[in-house]
This record gives sequence, structure tokens and C-alpha cells, in this order.
Amino acid sequence: MKFYSDNVTGCAPEILEQLVASNSLKAMPYGADELTSAAEVAFRQVFESDLETLLVATGTAANSLALAAIAPSHGAVFCVRGSHIEASEGGAVEFMTGGAKLVSIEGDAGKLLPERLEAALADHDEGASFRKPAAVSITQASELGTVYSAGEIAALASIAHGNGLKLHVDGARWANALACAGTTPAELSWRAGVDVLSLGATKNGALAAEAVLFFDSQLMQGVRERRKRSGMLLSKHRFLAVQFLAFFNSGLWLDLARHANAQAQKLRGKLAAYPAIAIVHPVEVNLVFARLPTGLTEHLAQGGAEFHQRKDGAVRFATSFATTDAEIDALIAAIDDFFESRKTNDRPADFHIPRSTPI
Amino acid sequence: MKFYSDNVTGCAPEILEQLVASNSLKAMPYGADELTSAAEVAFRQVFESDLETLLVATGTAANSLALAAIAPSHGAVFCVRGSHIEASEGGAVEFMTGGAKLVSIEGDAGKLLPERLEAALADHDEGASFRKPAAVSITQASELGTVYSAGEIAALASIAHGNGLKLHVDGARWANALACAGTTPAELSWRAGVDVLSLGATKNGALAAEAVLFFDSQLMQGVRERRKRSGMLLSKHRFLAVQFLAFFNSGLWLDLARHANAQAQKLRGKLAAYPAIAIVHPVEVNLVFARLPTGLTEHLAQGGAEFHQRKDGAVRFATSFATTDAEIDALIAAIDDFFESRKTNDRPADFHIPRSTPI
Amino acid sequence: MKFYSDNVTGCAPEILEQLVASNSLKAMPYGADELTSAAEVAFRQVFESDLETLLVATGTAANSLALAAIAPSHGAVFCVRGSHIEASEGGAVEFMTGGAKLVSIEGDAGKLLPERLEAALADHDEGASFRKPAAVSITQASELGTVYSAGEIAALASIAHGNGLKLHVDGARWANALACAGTTPAELSWRAGVDVLSLGATKNGALAAEAVLFFDSQLMQGVRERRKRSGMLLSKHRFLAVQFLAFFNSGLWLDLARHANAQAQKLRGKLAAYPAIAIVHPVEVNLVFARLPTGLTEHLAQGGAEFHQRKDGAVRFATSFATTDAEIDALIAAIDDFFESRKTNDRPADFHIPRSTPI
Amino acid sequence: MKFYSDNVTGCAPEILEQLVASNSLKAMPYGADELTSAAEVAFRQVFESDLETLLVATGTAANSLALAAIAPSHGAVFCVRGSHIEASEGGAVEFMTGGAKLVSIEGDAGKLLPERLEAALADHDEGASFRKPAAVSITQASELGTVYSAGEIAALASIAHGNGLKLHVDGARWANALACAGTTPAELSWRAGVDVLSLGATKNGALAAEAVLFFDSQLMQGVRERRKRSGMLLSKHRFLAVQFLAFFNSGLWLDLARHANAQAQKLRGKLAAYPAIAIVHPVEVNLVFARLPTGLTEHLAQGGAEFHQRKDGAVRFATSFATTDAEIDALIAAIDDFFESRKTNDRPADFHIPRSTPI
Repeated sequence: MKFYSDNVTGCAPEILEQLVASNSLKAMPYGADELTSAAEVAFRQVFESDLETLLVATGTAANSLALAAIAPSHGAVFCVRGSHIEASEGGAVEFMTGGAKLVSIEGDAGKLLPERLEAALADHDEGASFRKPAAVSITQASELGTVYSAGEIAALASIAHGNGLKLHVDGARWANALACAGTTPAELSWRAGVDVLSLGATKNGALAAEAVLFFDSQLMQGVRERRKRSGMLLSKHRFLAVQFLAFFNSGLWLDLARHANAQAQKLRGKLAAYPAIAIVHPVEVNLVFARLPTGLTEHLAQGGAEFHQRKDGAVRFATSFATTDAEIDALIAAIDDFFESRKTNDRPADFHIPRSTPI
Repeated sequence: MKFYSDNVTGCAPEILEQLVASNSLKAMPYGADELTSAAEVAFRQVFESDLETLLVATGTAANSLALAAIAPSHGAVFCVRGSHIEASEGGAVEFMTGGAKLVSIEGDAGKLLPERLEAALADHDEGASFRKPAAVSITQASELGTVYSAGEIAALASIAHGNGLKLHVDGARWANALACAGTTPAELSWRAGVDVLSLGATKNGALAAEAVLFFDSQLMQGVRERRKRSGMLLSKHRFLAVQFLAFFNSGLWLDLARHANAQAQKLRGKLAAYPAIAIVHPVEVNLVFARLPTGLTEHLAQGGAEFHQRKDGAVRFATSFATTDAEIDALIAAIDDFFESRKTNDRPADFHIPRSTPI
Repeated sequence: MKFYSDNVTGCAPEILEQLVASNSLKAMPYGADELTSAAEVAFRQVFESDLETLLVATGTAANSLALAAIAPSHGAVFCVRGSHIEASEGGAVEFMTGGAKLVSIEGDAGKLLPERLEAALADHDEGASFRKPAAVSITQASELGTVYSAGEIAALASIAHGNGLKLHVDGARWANALACAGTTPAELSWRAGVDVLSLGATKNGALAAEAVLFFDSQLMQGVRERRKRSGMLLSKHRFLAVQFLAFFNSGLWLDLARHANAQAQKLRGKLAAYPAIAIVHPVEVNLVFARLPTGLTEHLAQGGAEFHQRKDGAVRFATSFATTDAEIDALIAAIDDFFESRKTNDRPADFHIPRSTPI
Repeated sequence: MKFYSDNVTGCAPEILEQLVASNSLKAMPYGADELTSAAEVAFRQVFESDLETLLVATGTAANSLALAAIAPSHGAVFCVRGSHIEASEGGAVEFMTGGAKLVSIEGDAGKLLPERLEAALADHDEGASFRKPAAVSITQASELGTVYSAGEIAALASIAHGNGLKLHVDGARWANALACAGTTPAELSWRAGVDVLSLGATKNGALAAEAVLFFDSQLMQGVRERRKRSGMLLSKHRFLAVQFLAFFNSGLWLDLARHANAQAQKLRGKLAAYPAIAIVHPVEVNLVFARLPTGLTEHLAQGGAEFHQRKDGAVRFATSFATTDAEIDALIAAIDDFFESRKTNDRPADFHIPRSTPI
């Protein structure tokens, strides 16, 4: 019953196998090797684009390097309030850019609405604040597990570009979003106007591998140097490349994401059957947010279930490529056990929470 | 004949096995897991110290975080000219500290001499430069493959501490140095006065694993936050821990280092037998610096040998845990072939280079 | 009719005289002079405290150096949304601290309410955000011209200190606030729990002179070095000192502030007499915020009046030590002229704006 | 006998007069005023160039902002060892650029020799160091009081530009150098290939006024925002402008510089007459470096003379626009007095110091 995060898993077996298989190679360090070159080819094929890539070991590294490439130290980056770059990365963007400002905008179920972006841009006083609007950063899938369609991204990109800003996507769960959107990588990224994409593999089965994809190679200036000076250039770089080669091989990344998404739907369906449990946001990827009746959270935790307890009282269950039916069944059994013993499966009085509450 | 760097190898089999063996575990992310706790215990046992650890994926991360912990943004860090932090890490120390100054001192076969450190400290005008002397950083083994004895480190530590500075050691090849020194980890580190040690495992057989060891836990303030905000905190942190657990298991780290060192001695011995080849620095770990006669460098490179060609004309051969006798023999055979064909195994006219030349 | 800012004036004659009078002196540069020492004595007398001072030429320098002294690069600084450090200083705090986070809290007529500070601190998740709560920063008088009483400051200081944070005051208009509060400098600062005060003189009659007062000398560590490395240490430092000596001489600073405040009251009184004009915030110092009927803003601007037009539609009139009755009368005459010609002095339909709107 | 620095003086009377004369004006803050516009026109006329200007209050601000405009955070800036930006500005360049590296080159009497610059560029390994060569920065007049001719600058500019670098000049004593060079401002700057010039007025008679001149307006991108966020934008900006207007008025700046230079020549001539005193560097501007016999330094200091005692044993006398004949005569009288009493005017045994010693 390990639903705390999609980070609690190890490595997908297919990825680990490739890692082991390539281990005996001797390769030049710092990315000057054939596996890295092969990974670049794979990225270009998968995205149907002559893109440039940068491989790192963490999502925070990917996001902060991506944004430092498109926002100067006096820049403003517009994002959803509570997004990972704002709330959970310890100021990495501010640090990497040398002090850029994150301007946060209230999200709608985790997503940035075009009209709110326009309002925030209109409200921004560049002259008085000495802050150059430089980038919009959205999370796909969002922190609340919702997915932007290609059309929604295009609308945001249009506003961003129309105001001279670049569009960045934090794609820690991008494969999950792609699996949900049912379109192609190209349609959901550069064809919709995305300039830079942080494409995560770690949450979806890699050991530690994230890529920054620059769909415009002009934006790469100085990025490799920044990666080095921020300590993020791995010497045995080919191990990052190998993970992505396995990730893309035979569509593994989508298989892994589809499994995680499907398990979340399974869990959602079972939870929704309890009148006393409320599903808080649309479940589109591998995250299920729910509001539990009094006592159930503690009951589950005591029973060994792990999940994220939010400040607003809701809980988050994250499924992954490794989530088994047995885990879900065990959780449901623990819930049944709770209601059995209490016979109190009414909806709690504090049930309603608005869709846009950031959790 | 892959002698370019100790980074060209993959992972030592014993380490990879542990990585695979622990993969099916589900563990809390970001270091809140049992493997990380176990690794901390292992570090404390190995170093006989109640130290604090910080695990990262690169040596540059380790060094810059270590120095940011002991040098403020207006601090001065004294190091050997051409040391890795000065010449090869892209300004990571300056970046991570917010602008600290590296004051470089001419080394002696790569090592910092106490009298030169004292002279540099005496020469430093804190008032006029607004630079607070904060730390001394040395490399063990040095960039030229030489090793500081515990006594030599103690002499430097005494000067550093006497002037209110901390002593940091960049130990990318610390296991190799320890194997050479023939003493205990404690004797070569905190008992000799080292305050913070960047202990590398990657060059010595890990996939990507480096540790910063703080022998004084007071120095840890804010370090974990810095690691996060610089993008260096791995979500599946236990994979770093596993590598170190395997590294220390049954003295593997020393076995790997001894093999690398022994292969370097073997290579040194064979090279030294040629009158036309000069060994440039004492070979104490796994690095052999040599001066080759005209034409041999190109001959070897064309024959597929890989090694580092220095700006000063010397070459560096790095052995590793994975260097085989066959590789050495192949290199020697290629050298024999060169001399055979040329019959010119005289010492080149430009033979002499001073010991302190930074290469 | 120059009401755009208190910055539009030159230097108060008494201050300029002292500057001229001391000009022929030859003095050691960078603060090692007798005038600087005399200014330090003056500060200590005025504030009845063994404080430490740092003199700079701008308020942004003062605020960012003050906060860099008490907030690390991974720190969080709590302030009112729209406060000068957040909205109008171009990210100076983020830059000087190396990336600290400003956490903004909705103000009440520009002031921070204790309960909102407590809520923000309770809401801050240090573990998840990797952000150490480090400081609270308030503006005295606030951006909306309101004044914190000594008691109100003490309440905030108590919360800050109880949570391990320091309390900083941005006192760009501190003399105006002191004149309003009718208490002593000590009562309104350190006795109420202020740890660091940015005391502005420029807006209140100096040419360019701001001081950072550290009531706890422990907080000064590294501050002088930071001032130098950020380019804010004046070589002919005594000119900063002279301005403060004149500022404090015979209570000049309070005389200047009282005049500015009195002129604001005069203006407020006259504006309030028009039914169609709404005074937006309590007028406690030298700032008058008003909501003008349609057309009046343009009429006044065309007539040569200068004032700040806010994004929310309100306007700000700033008086100063140099504001004459004639200027006020000219403004009022222009307003009379407007209403005379329009005969439309009804309250506009959009009159009501809530007190806490940040303008 | 105040020869410690050209910073010990107050303001030149002509400049102070203009400051007083313009004081009663009310002007828009932050540079949006007519005096600032007038100063820009003056700069363009004086330099015969459609340049862009940035006014600040300190030389360190000017230099660090100038270099941050042309060097990225991963850039390398080549300069003479011991130059002001390297030795005396507390790391301002590193701080403002976000960590750029100063690569120091041994100077020749304070000046950068073209062949040494070429060697340093050739020696720089961009790939291995991750440091992009970005700028060359020289000091005019140099820290040792020597002057680059227009031809010498052109030679350096040619090398810089040929390698893709920009040429910056730290002109804290640029007026003194110009007076010595006997050419026009244009010839000594942009026509010789200078891209950015930090033009100092403070040392040459201003209260606190420095300008950064961008001869290519493309280089200005983001510079105004950086000035704000580093706290260097003065609110009553017109006071900076007024100082430069007075500085350029009727050639005042050159008159002031010529006086300072002439007094240095006078002093040099008198000192050179003593066999026991050695003049160390060519005296070309307002700095006289000398080596005094044992005991004389202390004798003069005790007699009230102020001058800079260098670590290498030499002393520096700085003259200024305000240096009187009486001060020089008093110094000479004190020297006479010393020799009279000692009768030991022999050259000291340790006389010889090489020309290129950085002091």
C-alpha cells in the first residue's frame, strides 16, 4: 500500500536490464559517448523534431536549467500558485537564474487558465517592478493530476508568444499526460507551441533520469556550461542516456504510464463507491485526490498504507508502473474494515471543497 | 586501451549487483528511507566518527556544496593552481557560494606546501580585498596523482585552523589515496584535521555516487536546503545509499582502489623501461603522467589508445578497478611497435619539465 | 504641483549647507573618517542604543543588505503583498540573498496583521519547500501611508521571534511614521522588538542617504563585505555621514517629516470636502490616496499636476518637506476649475474600494 | 600632506556649485528628468558617439555592471593580476555576473601586454573549464599609474575582438589618462576598440559619480534592471547627472586631471632628486610610487603625512585636483628633515624592485 509518491518505486525492470547490459562498455565521460548520441537520435525520432537535449538526474535540475535558459536574472516567470517550481523545489529557479521572480497565478484544478494568464500579464508593471516578463511555466500533468489538451497548451502558448515570453512545461509526469491525451509527443509539445520541455522519466520508471528538450536550439546558449557549474553534469553520462534509450524502446514509456494511469482509475472507481469518500479532482493520470471521513486517514496510516496528507485535509494516492492490483485491494480492504467497524459511512459535514483549491 | 580517465568505466559488478538486488523495494523518496539510514551508519563505522553525510551524484556537486557550507559569498578559498575546483568545474564553487574567490597557490607536484599556504595567507589583505579567508581546499590524491600523508594534512590543517579557516578535501580519488597511504580513514581525515571531505565513489567503481562528510555537524547548517535548491537531491535517493553500502561492504572500495593503483604501478614500470619515455610525477595512485618522444602520442592514438593529452605536452594514463593486464600489454605492444619501426628511442631534447608544472 | 513622489525634491537646505561646509575637509575614504564616526555616535544617541550602522545611497541597497544579513539564500521572508521589497525593487532581495523567497501576505491598509502572519507561518511547510523561515519585513510607514504603533510592532515582533525569525523594518518614510506615532525612536524600533531598521533620509530631505541600523551587532557579520561587493560602498563615505549629521541636528529630521505630514493633512482636508472625491486610506504620514471622478485625473495631469496613477484607478499624492501651501492651493484651484466646468461633483458609481486593496 | 588617495578630497568647487544651483528643482525620480537627459547629450558630444550611459555612485558598481553586461555567469574575464576588479572590489564582478571567473595575467608596469593576452587566451581551455572567454578588462590609467596609448588599446581590442571577446576599460582615472595621452575621448575609447568604459568622476573631483558608457547600445540589454536590483539606482538621479554636467562644462574634467597630473610630476621631480629615494614606475598620471630608505616611511607618517604603504615595501603618493604646492612642499620639508637628522641619504641595499611587480 505504497501510494505516497510515484518516487517510491525502484527502476522498471526493462530499464534496469539495459543499464546492466551496457555496464561493461568503456565510454568517454561527460556525454561524449555513443549511447548519449543514440539517445539524442531517439529523442528526435520520438518528438519528430530537430530538438536539442540536456540530460540530468533530477526534475529540479531540469526545471531550473530550463528556466535559466529562457529567463534572465531580472526576469519574471508566470506559473500556477503551488506549482512544483514554486512550492517544492526550494527556490531552485531563483537560485539558478540568479534571482528571477516567480509570479504565481491561482490555478483551476491545477491548470493555468488563459484569461488569468492574460490578466496577470496585464497587471505586471515592468517599468515599476524592473522585472522583464520572460516565461510561462506550466506543469503537465498538473500537480492536481489534471491534463492540458494540445489545444489548451496552444492557447497559453499563443498568449505567451504574443507577449514575447517563452513557454516551458514541467513534465515530471509528461508520459502519464501523453497517455491520457492520446495524441503524439509532437502534438502535445512543440506543435502546440511549447518551447522547452522538462521531460521526466524518474517518476515513470527510471532510476534517475530527466531530460530538458529545447525545440529551438537557439535557447541552448550557455546551458551546458550552467549544467556543469551547478554540479549536474554526470561523469558517467551514458547511464542517463541508457535509461532514456530503454524508456523509449518499443514504447515502454507509454506502457508504464498507461499502467500507472489505469491503476489510478481502478482506485478512483473503488473509492468513489463509498458515499463518505469524495474524489476531489478529475483523475486523468496517476494521482487520486480524495477527502476521507474523520478517522479513516489515521486508520489507513496505522494499517501501513502510505499516502500524502495535504494541508487542506485531502489525501493524495499516487500509483505507478509498479502498483499492483493487490496493493489496491489491500487498501480497499482496509477501508472496508474501517467502515465495517464504525458503521459510519456518511458523508462528512465538511465535504465540499472547491475544485480550484491548490493541494 | 581506455586510459582517458577512471570515469570511462561502468559500475563495479559488486555495486551493480546490490543496486539490482534492492530495486524491488519501495522506499520513501528524498532520503527518508532505511537504506539511506544504513549508509549513514556505514559511513560512521568506516570513519569512526559521529559524522554527518550528504549524498549527491557528482563530484562537482560534492565540492561546491562542501565549500558553500564553509565559505560565505565574500569568502576566499585557498587551493592549488590547476586543482579541479579551480580549473575543471566550470565555476561551481563561485556559483554555489554566491561568488567566493578561489585564491590559487602554485603546487608542488600537485600538492599544497605548508610554507606556500602560510605565505598566501600572509599576503592576503582582508581589509583591502573585502575577502574573508574562509577555507583551504586540497585534492587527495592530487590532480597529479600524488598523495598527502596524514602528517602533511595535519600540517596544513594546523595552519588553516590557526588562521580561522576550515580544511576541505576534494577526495574524488580518496580511496586510491587511502590505499596508498596505508592508514585508516579516520587517520587520513578528521584525526589529521580535515573538517569536510568530498568522498568520491564514481571514479572508483560506482555508477554515480559521491558523499560529503561533515566531521563537525555544526557545519551542516543549510546544506540540505542548498542541495535541494541546486537540483542535486535525488528523489530515489536510496540508489545513492545502496552504492555506498556496496562500496564499503567487505572493504570493496579498497580492493577496487588497490587494483587501480597496482595497474598504474605496472604501467609505470613498463613505461619507465624505455629510455625515451619520462615519467613525470611520482606514481602513487592510479595516474601515470609521462612525456613521450615525438610521434609516439599520435602513433598510440591512431592505434586506438585513449589517454589525456595535456597542454604542456605530457600525457596522462588513468587506470581503474576495471583495467586489465591485457589493456596494459596492448599499450606496451603498441609502444614497442613504434620504437621498432622508428629505432629512435632516445630521450627527446625537451625532456626536462619541472616537477611543479601544473598538468 | 509636484506630488508624484517625495523623491522629486532636491536636498533640504540645512543638509546641503552641511555638505558644502564640510567639503574642504580631506578625509580617509571608505568610512575610515571622523565624520562617519560622529554619525555613528549620533545614531546611538538618537536611538538610545549601542547599535551598529551601515550607510548606503539607496533604499533598495539598505533593504536588500539588511535582509541578506538575516535571511540565508534558502530563507523565506514574510512581507505584505505589494510591499516595496516585493513589487518595486526589481528583485534586489532575491539577488542580494542569493535567492531567498518573499512570501507575500495580503495586507490591511498596507499593514501586516498579526493573525495573518501567524497563519502564513503555520501554512509554511519548511520540510516540503526547503525554505527556512528567516525574517518578517514590514514597511513603516506602509506603502499605503499607514503607521504601525509601537504596540502593533511588538505584536509582530513577538510572533517573529517566537518562531525564530528576525523582524526587519523598511523605513523609507520612518521619520514620517515617527512624527505621526509621537513616540521616541527607541520605542518605535528596538524596544518594540525591531532587529534591523532601514532608516531612510532621502525621501525626507537628504540628497541620497540611507542607513541600516543593526540593534544586535551579531547580525552584522559579513555585511560590510557584502556592501562592498555589491558596489554600494561610497569612497567619499563621509558625505553620507554628513547628511545624517545634519538630518539629526536639532531634530531637523522630525521638523521635515512634520511639515510633510502636515501638508498631507492639509491636502486631505481639502480633497475630502469634495463629495465626488474619496480618500481611500487613513492619511497618517505624507501620502494621500484618493479616488477621483471620471475626467479629473486627466484634467489635473493636463494642467501640469504630477501624481502617481495606480493600476486600480486610485491616485497618490505625496507631499514632502518642500511642499508649499501654494502647490496645494494650485492643485485645489485646478480641481475647482474641473468641477466648475463640469458641474458634476457627484460621487462616481465605482466609488467603493475595500480598505485592504493594495495600491 | 594628504596623499593617501585621490578619494580623500571633497568635491571640486565648480561641481558643488552646480549641485547647489540645481537643488531647488523638482524633478522626476530614477532618471526620468531633464538633467539626466542633458547629461546624456553631453556624454555623446564629448565622446562623439551615439553611446548609451548608465550613471551610478561608485566605481565598483560601474565595473561590475559593465562586466555583467558583457560576461555571462559562466564567462571568463581576462585582466591584469592585482587590478582593481580582482584585488580591491570584494568580488563584485563575481557577484554581479553570478560567478564569472577573473583570469589574471601578470602585468607589465600595471599594463596588459598583447602577447600575454594572446598566450592566456591560447592557454584557456574552454571545453575543459566550461568557461566561455567573454571579456578583457584593463585599467586606464593602470593601478601603477601608467597609461595605455590609443595604439596599445587598439592592439588589445584587436586580439579581444578577434577571439569574440569584448573590451572593457576601468577608467577610475580615465581623465588623468586622457590628459596624459593628449588625444580625444573618442580616440582613446571607441575608435581604439573599447566596447564599454567605466568613466570615473569621483576620484577626479565629483562627490560620487561614475558612468558606464556603452558604445554599442546592444550591450545594454538588462543593464538598467540589474542596476535597480543591485540597489544602485539613485532615486534623486539628477544629482549624478548634475555632477557630470559640471564635470564636462568648459573642459573642467581635463583641467582637474591636468592639475593632479602636474602635481604628481612636481612631486616626482623633487623625490627623484634624493639619491636614497627610488621612483618605482613611470609617473604618467597622478600616482607616484617610490621606495623610501629605512626609517623615512615612519618619519613621514609620524609627521602627519598620509600615503599608501604597499605590501612590497613601496609607498604610493596620490595627488588630486585639490593638491596644493604647500602640501608638496611640506612633504619635501619633512623628507629634508629626515635626511638632515640622519645624514643617511644612501640608497638602501634592497633598492631594486622589478618594474612588473604588482603594487
